[in-house]
Amino acid sequence: MTHFMQEMTWKEYASCADKIVILPIGATEQHGEHLPLCVDAVLAEGFSLKLAEQIDGIIMPTLRYGYKSKPMSGGGPLFPGTVDLNGETVIKLVYDVLTEIIRDGFTKILIMNAHFENEAFIVEAMDLVTRDTNGIAKILETNWWDPMPSHIIDQVFDEIPFPGWALEHAAVTETSLMLYFKPELVHMDRITDTKNAEYMPYYRYPICKSDIPETGTLASAASSSFERGKLIVDSVLHELVRICEKEFNK
Amino acid sequence: MTHFMQEMTWKEYASCADKIVILPIGATEQHGEHLPLCVDAVLAEGFSLKLAEQIDGIIMPTLRYGYKSKPMSGGGPLFPGTVDLNGETVIKLVYDVLTEIIRDGFTKILIMNAHFENEAFIVEAMDLVTRDTNGIAKILETNWWDPMPSHIIDQVFDEIPFPGWALEHAAVTETSLMLYFKPELVHMDRITDTKNAEYMPYYRYPICKSDIPETGTLASAASSSFERGKLIVDSVLHELVRICEKEFNK
Amino acid sequence: MTHFMQEMTWKEYASCADKIVILPIGATEQHGEHLPLCVDAVLAEGFSLKLAEQIDGIIMPTLRYGYKSKPMSGGGPLFPGTVDLNGETVIKLVYDVLTEIIRDGFTKILIMNAHFENEAFIVEAMDLVTRDTNGIAKILETNWWDPMPSHIIDQVFDEIPFPGWALEHAAVTETSLMLYFKPELVHMDRITDTKNAEYMPYYRYPICKSDIPETGTLASAASSSFERGKLIVDSVLHELVRICEKEFNK
Amino acid sequence: MTHFMQEMTWKEYASCADKIVILPIGATEQHGEHLPLCVDAVLAEGFSLKLAEQIDGIIMPTLRYGYKSKPMSGGGPLFPGTVDLNGETVIKLVYDVLTEIIRDGFTKILIMNAHFENEAFIVEAMDLVTRDTNGIAKILETNWWDPMPSHIIDQVFDEIPFPGWALEHAAVTETSLMLYFKPELVHMDRITDTKNAEYMPYYRYPICKSDIPETGTLASAASSSFERGKLIVDSVLHELVRICEKEFNK
Amino acid sequence: MTHFMQEMTWKEYASCADKIVILPIGATEQHGEHLPLCVDAVLAEGFSLKLAEQIDGIIMPTLRYGYKSKPMSGGGPLFPGTVDLNGETVIKLVYDVLTEIIRDGFTKILIMNAHFENEAFIVEAMDLVTRDTNGIAKILETNWWDPMPSHIIDQVFDEIPFPGWALEHAAVTETSLMLYFKPELVHMDRITDTKNAEYMPYYRYPICKSDIPETGTLASAASSSFERGKLIVDSVLHELVRICEKEFNK
Amino acid sequence: MTHFMQEMTWKEYASCADKIVILPIGATEQHGEHLPLCVDAVLAEGFSLKLAEQIDGIIMPTLRYGYKSKPMSGGGPLFPGTVDLNGETVIKLVYDVLTEIIRDGFTKILIMNAHFENEAFIVEAMDLVTRDTNGIAKILETNWWDPMPSHIIDQVFDEIPFPGWALEHAAVTETSLMLYFKPELVHMDRITDTKNAEYMPYYRYPICKSDIPETGTLASAASSSFERGKLIVDSVLHELVRICEKEFNK
Repeated sequence: MTHFMQEMTWKEYASCADKIVILPIGATEQHGEHLPLCVDAVLAEGFSLKLAEQIDGIIMPTLRYGYKSKPMSGGGPLFPGTVDLNGETVIKLVYDVLTEIIRDGFTKILIMNAHFENEAFIVEAMDLVTRDTNGIAKILETNWWDPMPSHIIDQVFDEIPFPGWALEHAAVTETSLMLYFKPELVHMDRITDTKNAEYMPYYRYPICKSDIPETGTLASAASSSFERGKLIVDSVLHELVRICEKEFNK
Repeated sequence: MTHFMQEMTWKEYASCADKIVILPIGATEQHGEHLPLCVDAVLAEGFSLKLAEQIDGIIMPTLRYGYKSKPMSGGGPLFPGTVDLNGETVIKLVYDVLTEIIRDGFTKILIMNAHFENEAFIVEAMDLVTRDTNGIAKILETNWWDPMPSHIIDQVFDEIPFPGWALEHAAVTETSLMLYFKPELVHMDRITDTKNAEYMPYYRYPICKSDIPETGTLASAASSSFERGKLIVDSVLHELVRICEKEFNK
Repeated sequence: MTHFMQEMTWKEYASCADKIVILPIGATEQHGEHLPLCVDAVLAEGFSLKLAEQIDGIIMPTLRYGYKSKPMSGGGPLFPGTVDLNGETVIKLVYDVLTEIIRDGFTKILIMNAHFENEAFIVEAMDLVTRDTNGIAKILETNWWDPMPSHIIDQVFDEIPFPGWALEHAAVTETSLMLYFKPELVHMDRITDTKNAEYMPYYRYPICKSDIPETGTLASAASSSFERGKLIVDSVLHELVRICEKEFNK
Repeated sequence: MTHFMQEMTWKEYASCADKIVILPIGATEQHGEHLPLCVDAVLAEGFSLKLAEQIDGIIMPTLRYGYKSKPMSGGGPLFPGTVDLNGETVIKLVYDVLTEIIRDGFTKILIMNAHFENEAFIVEAMDLVTRDTNGIAKILETNWWDPMPSHIIDQVFDEIPFPGWALEHAAVTETSLMLYFKPELVHMDRITDTKNAEYMPYYRYPICKSDIPETGTLASAASSSFERGKLIVDSVLHELVRICEKEFNK
Repeated sequence: MTHFMQEMTWKEYASCADKIVILPIGATEQHGEHLPLCVDAVLAEGFSLKLAEQIDGIIMPTLRYGYKSKPMSGGGPLFPGTVDLNGETVIKLVYDVLTEIIRDGFTKILIMNAHFENEAFIVEAMDLVTRDTNGIAKILETNWWDPMPSHIIDQVFDEIPFPGWALEHAAVTETSLMLYFKPELVHMDRITDTKNAEYMPYYRYPICKSDIPETGTLASAASSSFERGKLIVDSVLHELVRICEKEFNK
Repeated sequence: MTHFMQEMTWKEYASCADKIVILPIGATEQHGEHLPLCVDAVLAEGFSLKLAEQIDGIIMPTLRYGYKSKPMSGGGPLFPGTVDLNGETVIKLVYDVLTEIIRDGFTKILIMNAHFENEAFIVEAMDLVTRDTNGIAKILETNWWDPMPSHIIDQVFDEIPFPGWALEHAAVTETSLMLYFKPELVHMDRITDTKNAEYMPYYRYPICKSDIPETGTLASAASSSFERGKLIVDSVLHELVRICEKEFNK
């Protein structure tokens, strides 16, 4: 049977209430000149499917719009194609979807987030839902970078140095993951030799055009490959399965 | 080039600012025992793609969650798999997405809605956005049933009588459209011989289980076919193109 | 004793907790050159009083401001005198009033709406109140057009053709009802021979002045009469009483 | 011509844009055993009509529901028939109505409030509207007790002592005013000899039943009369006209 | 041990759950040329400390920003240094803080407010919290002017006449209290001989510069003294202790 | 002259409009058994004062309540004394304060945040204010950990290993800073030998008591000292001054 909730009839879905439900959350955001706007949505859904296959989970329809792109991760309002939701909208959207999943009797929920800026607002929604449903469901939120073992980072960045997560936007990890999940949407020929953006230890508004390289890429995507993508997916998946086993006895 | 905004890079998207942007809005909602939960999202996206091909338009990522399913159209909270957003959430979500499209310089926007209950909240968002952006963009909202010529209804319902739009949930039109757009998700063998639900000229809360047939289908899906789906799509598409020509000089 | 809650003392009101409470909701909206701005409020209150007399019900103070007038029903912002509440305001207002009625121990509530655009926002409030009060009260929402038997429409429109409900704004039905309920506010001499507005199968913003005939009347009011008004009232009232009997055992 | 906006057609209303618009705001609230629930709405509308006649003003439909009744003024949730709106609802409601009046071109607005607890929320709405409309309209908010000259209080309370405004709920002033404006709704025979409620220099929640006399009357209504009502109306009206002259050059 | 919650460790605070918690609420608002912007915060905290010492209470961190300064009490937007929170912000802020105090097991809460304009919004928060926590905590709200015995007013105003509370902004009472609590922040040499502002029995927007004397002082501060401040503090404190004894059996 | 805005008169404050305004934001949150609940507020204000002295800046009253303590940083709802504001409240509070600073003519604003969880909600407020004030003010947000040079971390953690910022709650850095800023509130004798909490690469709700060590300390505070506090302050201050020079030409 399909893992995608949206392809099920209501009866099929109703029969899965003891399974783990995975809610992928991405964004529609500029990812340089070589990657499409859907990177975060594709990665959230890609990891969700891999995980669902291993734990026999169910995947909810992906939230394809997310919270505002922060200046240092791609320059929200400066690039066409970045669709920024307000914080309150993200909170309400995640709140409503979680509430409805719980009303249908599901109690094991994992949110797979692939857009860092979403995190605080997703967690706010989780807190509010937990309070309003008396904590009857266990809700996890994770992503593909926090569970990644540090030695994998070393392996992925064996050709060029790891610029830090703050600059890993449209760079080696995301490009490699896209080569793994949706190679047909990657334009390797458009990767240019960019100098890394400079890390700023503060937020500044209004955002300046010159905060970010013209391409929208914050660090070099050179050395990206399908193999590096697979390396990340395999190692992260291993961790995600362990987390599910530990938290959901699954 | 692709019509799907999400598959474009930001530069590709930026170069399309004079095109018509189509925003498909669906829902995740029970559709009887023979149709999947994604019917409204599939139909919204399906009509959007057909239209985009004809007018060289751009399709935004589909909003796959919608406003609450009303009792008479499938019984919101009574069936698992119906994910109901609150009215305020829908307004804010559509408001934010429209605002961002307009900020990127697009001024010709068409919302293709396939979940009737969304309508009032989408239009509220359109009104608020228009006010807050001084009306610089022209925004249309339509669907696939209102522009359908009445003689097409007669042709579609040549075997069984048209039960009225209020009961056309998971019935002949939606099933035929799914046979046209996504036949692999239709379970024709599970269509049962249901008596039509009774039309109630009022809303009643709390919702009663017995308001709706057990299957979730409000009228018979018998006689649904690919051909009837095609008939609807062709005729509606003809009207949609005319509307775009008239309103956008396209 | 009076049926109007506002004319009662708190003790008199407290003694009625087993009766049906009727909440009339109207609007303040342009109704052409021959009808006053209060048409929707007068009709909501008029039907409520007739019903209250038959079922010994109580009438709450009428909500005289409503949701935005939609372009096709009279052109909200284009005509002075149309006072449009935002969607969120209508939801909160109806929510609060319903909550207070229920706190006072009433469990049989009927909302009589006479402004179509209010409907989605009223029903949203009903849903939220039902959820927050655990469904202890039964709440109905209806109007005067949905319960009207179709043969009555034929009788009312025996001189001129029925233009469809979307265009019945300040036209035959509303004018006839005003002649029945408040003839002193009807200016029959100002009725002009208007061509019907054209039905548009989509919403469009910003609203154009030319979407609507200059008078604000969407279809001809010619042939309006006290008798037609009485015909509507009598037939609708009959249905309303049946609904109350069925739903409230009253 | 009528002073009531609701009785005008849109054209009649449009022709009055240079007149002063009066928005009466009341409440639906217990007023002891001898007065009806509509006292505040009747007084707001009564003073508005008197004023409109003198300054050729226009009266908007009265807001008949208001902010929560505070414990010391009648005990909101303790008495059936008190319909309490939340603060946010009152702010949004008044905000929307004021915004629409200003959009129609009116720039001289006077709010006549007859329910003390409304005040802070009305003024918040006035501040927000002023900010959002760049202050193009002049908006006043007043009532019938603040402009009353102090020597009139002495004249009204010539038989029994003035208990202070905090306790003047359903007491001499309101009862006298109702005898002036709507004597048919006053039950003089039900006035009982109540000891004044004790003034508390603090708010306390939860509200206790015993904070307020059983009748709902906070001070004695004895000595109330039509003449005292007229005395108040005449003196307040004199002040209101002066305020309008000073502020609106009217 | 300290009375200030903020100086305690969580264990020390946890051990005080049966004590009375005092929440001081002030504002940041112009107070003429001789007083600092923190007057309301200093007075709220000063009275709270005196009270805490007598009843062995706990003082929460002071809310130092408050609701908008109303025209007649110092002219909100007209003077730099007046930081006005919106009504909704104050409600949410007080709501959240009260909720958290109650979640920690405290059931005796006293709000000491020193900025009149805060009152309605604080009380709204108290009402909402009481409803949402089923009234398990007793919450009082008071200030330093309402409990002051009237004969003390006579004693304080033995040299110049009492201008009424509406004008007592940056005048004798506040200046004397500051001389008592924080004399180092009072500039007695800058007190000028101001004529009292004129009392207006209505609110008017937009606010005019000339509504208020240039200094920001609404009535003369002449005759202010430490002794008068002490007189007020001692008498009010006596009343506050009585209120705590009566309401909290403390 | 004082750097604290609250100690100024409005005239003094008005004369500083070309200076940098610093808004300290902290929290009221458990910090183990040896530190008080005000740590974040003290540190935010402490760094602000040091910075203000060097750049001749102005310090706004500190926001002493902050966003919810996240499980991994001290266990929000599990420890008494942690006062959690909802996300929406923090956004509105910071929004209002920033708006008012800008209205008073200040255009150089630096937010000094000492509670990590605040960050996303503060930045949301900055974005909304920037949009609504057309970006006329430059607003920075920073803290004391991001600008700290990495070699300083090595120097501070010369006795025990750096556990990572996620666990640095009530541990070496915060304890050393408190020994520098407010030694009288540090209980060195209560520091116990705690094993570091385990880092979890995901959020989990509901929060479990056992997620966090019993003391509330997530990593050992051993080796904390005044000297280490001074080392941090001096190095961070150096960076903060550089940031101000670069961004504000100050």
